[in-house]
Amino acid sequence: MVGPARFMNLLSCFELGVVDALRENPGMTAAKLGDTVGAKPDAVEQLLYLLVKEGFVAYDEASGAYELDALADVSDGDLRGVAAFLEFIKVTTLRQLFHLTESVRTGTVVGLREFYGFDGTLYAAAAEHRDLGDPWAKVMNATTARIDPWFFGNIDVPSGAQVLDLAGNTGLGAIHTYKLKKSPGLRVTTFDLPEREEECLRNFRENGVAEHCSFIGGDVFEAVPQGFDVVLIKHFIDMFDKEDVLRIFDGVSRSLNPGGQVHILVPVYPENIKDTDNYTIDFFPSFFLGASMGQGGPQKLSTYRSWLEEAGFTVTKAISKDPAELPPYALPVQGILCATKSS
Amino acid sequence: MVGPARFMNLLSCFELGVVDALRENPGMTAAKLGDTVGAKPDAVEQLLYLLVKEGFVAYDEASGAYELDALADVSDGDLRGVAAFLEFIKVTTLRQLFHLTESVRTGTVVGLREFYGFDGTLYAAAAEHRDLGDPWAKVMNATTARIDPWFFGNIDVPSGAQVLDLAGNTGLGAIHTYKLKKSPGLRVTTFDLPEREEECLRNFRENGVAEHCSFIGGDVFEAVPQGFDVVLIKHFIDMFDKEDVLRIFDGVSRSLNPGGQVHILVPVYPENIKDTDNYTIDFFPSFFLGASMGQGGPQKLSTYRSWLEEAGFTVTKAISKDPAELPPYALPVQGILCATKSS
Repeated sequence: MVGPARFMNLLSCFELGVVDALRENPGMTAAKLGDTVGAKPDAVEQLLYLLVKEGFVAYDEASGAYELDALADVSDGDLRGVAAFLEFIKVTTLRQLFHLTESVRTGTVVGLREFYGFDGTLYAAAAEHRDLGDPWAKVMNATTARIDPWFFGNIDVPSGAQVLDLAGNTGLGAIHTYKLKKSPGLRVTTFDLPEREEECLRNFRENGVAEHCSFIGGDVFEAVPQGFDVVLIKHFIDMFDKEDVLRIFDGVSRSLNPGGQVHILVPVYPENIKDTDNYTIDFFPSFFLGASMGQGGPQKLSTYRSWLEEAGFTVTKAISKDPAELPPYALPVQGILCATKSS
Repeated sequence: MVGPARFMNLLSCFELGVVDALRENPGMTAAKLGDTVGAKPDAVEQLLYLLVKEGFVAYDEASGAYELDALADVSDGDLRGVAAFLEFIKVTTLRQLFHLTESVRTGTVVGLREFYGFDGTLYAAAAEHRDLGDPWAKVMNATTARIDPWFFGNIDVPSGAQVLDLAGNTGLGAIHTYKLKKSPGLRVTTFDLPEREEECLRNFRENGVAEHCSFIGGDVFEAVPQGFDVVLIKHFIDMFDKEDVLRIFDGVSRSLNPGGQVHILVPVYPENIKDTDNYTIDFFPSFFLGASMGQGGPQKLSTYRSWLEEAGFTVTKAISKDPAELPPYALPVQGILCATKSS
């Protein structure tokens, strides 16, 4: 019930600069803080109650002085990470979720229409609206930088393989694949909407992999190019409901040579739904339904496994990241599934 | 971080009718529920993950059937109360809090300007916009009905007293005062903005107290009418910062006859800010700053006591409601302060 209030109260202390001010000058009073951040001391005092309650900030009754408490032990990098994540959640969900029910009824993101006059998904809107796109890209890039080494450390890409990066956007996944799995003859193809081609090819050139990487434009629900040994699907199948995920798997199956492998990276719900240390369930259903796609949402690792089997694959690996290895503010717990196209 | 997501995920299950459907027909599958509420089964399944996680709803893997779990033990009345409260929070805060930081900086409710083109407070906006006013009135009336008997049971109104209900709105407080504290010669005057007069007098007539109640129009920060034995201030001083609360107390002091008493009803923060069973601190700072006033917010009972003393009153009673006596979904914990005008 107090979720939105707690969320914005905390974020506002970051946005106003109260946290930074206390980091630089511990022991400031509400009057001093108000002066520094340009707000009335009474308001600063009100907002800091929650941070004192949560033990983020300490308050000394006698002197009226505030200083960072638990937040003092957080590194600069983590603090910037938290602030970026809060900002991302604010711009992509807070207002949009007002229309969650209508989004669920219509299978569209009503919030994007209401606040941006935009018919489509968050990913398309992010390309046009920088106030959505910038906070989104910041969090996505940080997540990719963290998770890609784990993903590539866990998958097998045979020497000289022909690799397809499905829904590979502007080539980052292909570049990582080539750099982390380099072998003689290795070739990585990014497959995505034709409008991504130009930026993708530029990225290949700038990263010196243009000789080994290429781009094919198309729609994953229409036709996936064929003749590959490995297909990668990163951060994609969680955007769709089961029937569409099965259509994607079907396209992948036709794309692969016999014995070829698909490697999937996707956020997963915990097998024990009641696991209270895992917040994927708290965040993703409303995020996908009301803020980004109007459909979709992650599944359990075991559900994805059974869908792969339903699509005729033989699953060879299904693991999820140990939440203990994630930064404390990271919401998604990622899973990896590897599967072979049955002959 | 997941506050807004959890909040709207839960509320959406009420708005869609999923909770009602399960109440009427336990054991429905996602497919059946989707049919019933007009949403895709995949989306219903996503939204119900959180309710299963929280133990509100039970899920049977084998049959795919859902039924109410903890929510089954909640009475119809409480369930309606919760839904009304969630709806009130949604319409008055969810989108508006997007602009909390700017509201704090300007001391105005930027969210009301953005979403309603309204310059002013939630209370004024509620009078013009029914989508705000109706959910607000529903919760306020339920709270008043619950809390007024406790308030009047704890204050002393001498026989035949002249009572002023400060910021008494359209007379409900005056009517309750007369009915609960009736004595020969008792007279209650509602003091509020002149535009409330007509509705207030009509309420007096309809409740058969027109002979004993009257209305005076004016502004509490300009001049409070004088010559009273008792002044009541209900749900009002939490809307202002300290300097304005002291101005109100000063006006009250001039309004009272020597030895007269002021009785205050106001939500209070717990004396131990870190009390995690009390959610007033989680909700009210951002509600007052970003959703209703652009200023204000409750204080601890001990703070209000010291402000009354600063204004020259002698405090004779300061109690707060036992949270255990409140319905489980009630956020505000109310306090009562009684004080005598020192001679």
